[in-house]
Amino acid sequence: MTDRPDNTPVPADPTGIDAVAWRNERLDLLDQRRLPADVRRVVCEDVDAAIHCIRDMVVRGAPAIGVAAAYAAVLAARAQHATHGADWQAGFRTDLIRLAEARPTAVNLAWAVERMARVAENARGDPTEALLDEARRIHAEDIAMNQAMAKLGADLIEAGNPMPAAVITHCNAGALATGGLGTALGVIREAWRRGLVTRVWVDETRPWLQGARLTAWELGRDGIPVTVITDSAAAQLMRREPPDWAIVGADRVAANGDVVNKIGTYGLAVVARHHGVKFMVVAPSSTLDPATPDGDAVPIEQRDAAEIWAAAGGAPVGAEAVNPAFDVTPAALVDVLVTERGVAQPPSGRTIAALLRA
Amino acid sequence: MTDRPDNTPVPADPTGIDAVAWRNERLDLLDQRRLPADVRRVVCEDVDAAIHCIRDMVVRGAPAIGVAAAYAAVLAARAQHATHGADWQAGFRTDLIRLAEARPTAVNLAWAVERMARVAENARGDPTEALLDEARRIHAEDIAMNQAMAKLGADLIEAGNPMPAAVITHCNAGALATGGLGTALGVIREAWRRGLVTRVWVDETRPWLQGARLTAWELGRDGIPVTVITDSAAAQLMRREPPDWAIVGADRVAANGDVVNKIGTYGLAVVARHHGVKFMVVAPSSTLDPATPDGDAVPIEQRDAAEIWAAAGGAPVGAEAVNPAFDVTPAALVDVLVTERGVAQPPSGRTIAALLRA
Repeated sequence: MTDRPDNTPVPADPTGIDAVAWRNERLDLLDQRRLPADVRRVVCEDVDAAIHCIRDMVVRGAPAIGVAAAYAAVLAARAQHATHGADWQAGFRTDLIRLAEARPTAVNLAWAVERMARVAENARGDPTEALLDEARRIHAEDIAMNQAMAKLGADLIEAGNPMPAAVITHCNAGALATGGLGTALGVIREAWRRGLVTRVWVDETRPWLQGARLTAWELGRDGIPVTVITDSAAAQLMRREPPDWAIVGADRVAANGDVVNKIGTYGLAVVARHHGVKFMVVAPSSTLDPATPDGDAVPIEQRDAAEIWAAAGGAPVGAEAVNPAFDVTPAALVDVLVTERGVAQPPSGRTIAALLRA
Repeated sequence: MTDRPDNTPVPADPTGIDAVAWRNERLDLLDQRRLPADVRRVVCEDVDAAIHCIRDMVVRGAPAIGVAAAYAAVLAARAQHATHGADWQAGFRTDLIRLAEARPTAVNLAWAVERMARVAENARGDPTEALLDEARRIHAEDIAMNQAMAKLGADLIEAGNPMPAAVITHCNAGALATGGLGTALGVIREAWRRGLVTRVWVDETRPWLQGARLTAWELGRDGIPVTVITDSAAAQLMRREPPDWAIVGADRVAANGDVVNKIGTYGLAVVARHHGVKFMVVAPSSTLDPATPDGDAVPIEQRDAAEIWAAAGGAPVGAEAVNPAFDVTPAALVDVLVTERGVAQPPSGRTIAALLRA
C-alpha cells in the first residue's frame, strides 16, 4: 500500500489525546498501561500485535477497542492479501475471529469486527483501501457520536439543575476510551464548558486504576477540577456532600437496559440510588446489544489475580483472589442512558428498542 | 527496672501472632506496614517511638492501638521518673496527651490512656510497676473480650443459619488489630471452628490494603479459605452469590449506635442492606463512646493523599486526592453489634446504654 489521499478523513480528536490513530499505514496507540508517568505510543504492524495490545490493555475502553479493532482488520487484510493474493479471505476470517475474541465483554469489539467483515465480503482485488475507508468511517462516527452524546447529556444536567454542582465518575470513559471527547467524560467536558460543573470526583477504580491514572490525567490536562478517592469512599462522599450526578460509560447494554461496565459501577449505582444521586450511563449505539436479553447473559471477563496482588506485594500463603473486570447494573438503577441517537429515560426493553429503531 | 515476676500475667495470643507484646521491658510490635512480604518486629524504647509507630501504622486496629498505648504509657512514666524523680507526673501528663493525639478516630486509644492516667494519679514512688500492671491488665482483658465476642458472634451465626455459608469482611479486625483472636475475625475463627463458614471473602481495603495484606495473611495462616476481591467488587458478589453475613470491627461506636470504622464500611453496609445480607459489627466495650452523640460528631482522620497515589505511580498534573481513613455507618444499617458484654440487636441509643450499664 502506498500513501494516497484519504477517502474518509478522520476529524482530529478535539482533546488532542489520540488514543487510537492510523499513522504511516500502521495502527498507532497511546500506551494506557504507562500513564500518567509515561506518555508513550505503541505501533502495531500486524493483527497479532493489535490483539496483544487489546488484551493487555494498551488500548481499552469499549469504543476505543472498536476503533482499534477496525484498523487491526485493515492490517490483517493487507497481510493476508500480500501473502495469499486472491485467496486472502479465509485467513482474514480467522484473523477476525481471533480479534473478536481478544476481550469478551465489550460488544463494540464484535460490532466493529462485524462491520469490517461485511465490507470485506464485497471487496474486489486488494481489499486494503475499502477496509481502511470503513475503519476511518467507524473512527469518524465515534468522534461524532461523542459530540452528540456530550450535548444530550449536558442538556439533561442543565435541565435538572442549572446551578453548578459536582459530579462523580468511575473508571475512564474519556478520550482515552474513545476516538474523541469520551462518553461520560464527553458529557462532563461539555457540562464544564457550560459552567455546570464545580468538581469531578473520580473513583480510583481498582485494580487497574483507570480513574486515578487515566481520568485524573485527562481532566487535569483540561484544567477541570478533579479529586480522586478510593472506590470505597464514594458512599461516604454521597452521604456528606452528594454530587448531582454519577456519570459512567458502558461496555455493553443488554436488550432490557441492563448495563455491563467496569467492576464497581454496580456498587456505585446502589449507593447513588440510596442517596438520591442521579445515575447517567453514556454509550454510543454500538454498545447496545439487542441479541443479549439481560446483563446476566453477558460474559464477564475474569482477569489475572496478579492485577490485584501487585499492590499488596504478592499473595499471602493460602489466600486466593478473584478479579472480575466488569459487573452488571440492572436497568432499574439507571436514571438515564444517553446515546447519540437520543436518550432512554429510564433504560428498559421498550426504550432501548425505540433507540435501536431510531 | 529489673526483671521480676509478673503481677498480671498476660495469656498468650491464641493465634501466636502477638501484634503487640511487652518483651525485655520494651514495647515490641509486629510491623504491619511490611506484611505479608516481611514478618518483622519493631521495638519501641520510649514513648516517642511508640507514638511514631501508632501514627505510621506499624501497629493499627483500635484495640491493638489501645494495648500499645498502655505499654507506651509505661515507657513514658519510666523515663520521666528516671529523669525527674518525684516530679515525674507533669512530663508524664504531657506525654499522655501527645500519645492520645497520635490518631484521632479510634476511641480505644483515649480510653487506654485515660485508664493509665488514673493509675498514675495514685502511684507512689516509682510508678513503673503499677503502670505495667495496668497495661498488662488492659492487654489480658482485650484477649478475654475477644474470646467472649467470638462466642457470642458465632452463636448468632449458628442461630441464624446452622448450615455452612460464606461471610465477607472489610479491613482487618483480627489478631493484628487486637491482643488476641480479633473482633470480626475472632467471630469468624470461632464460626469456622464450628463448621459454619465455607469461605471468607475479604475486601482488599484501599488504600492501605489491610484486607489483602493482613486479613488474607491471618486467615491463610489459619487454613481458613480466603478470597480477596477489590472493594468495589463486593456489590456484584452480593448480587450473584450473597454471603450470609458481612462482619466488621469498629474504631468507635457513638451513643446512638452509629459505627465509625475503616473507609468503605459504610458502602459495604449499604450494599449489604440492598441485598439482604446481614451486617454484624464486633467491638469490645472500650470502643463504645457514650460521650459522642452520633457518628457525625466523631473526628475522621484525613491521611496523606500519597497513600492513594502510590499505586498509580504518582499524581497526574492538576489532579487532587482526598484520603479519609474512616467513615460513618448509621446504626440503622447495622443488624447487630457484638461486645463482650452482650449484643445490641440492633444498636440504638437504648441498646447501647443497656450494654454500658451491664
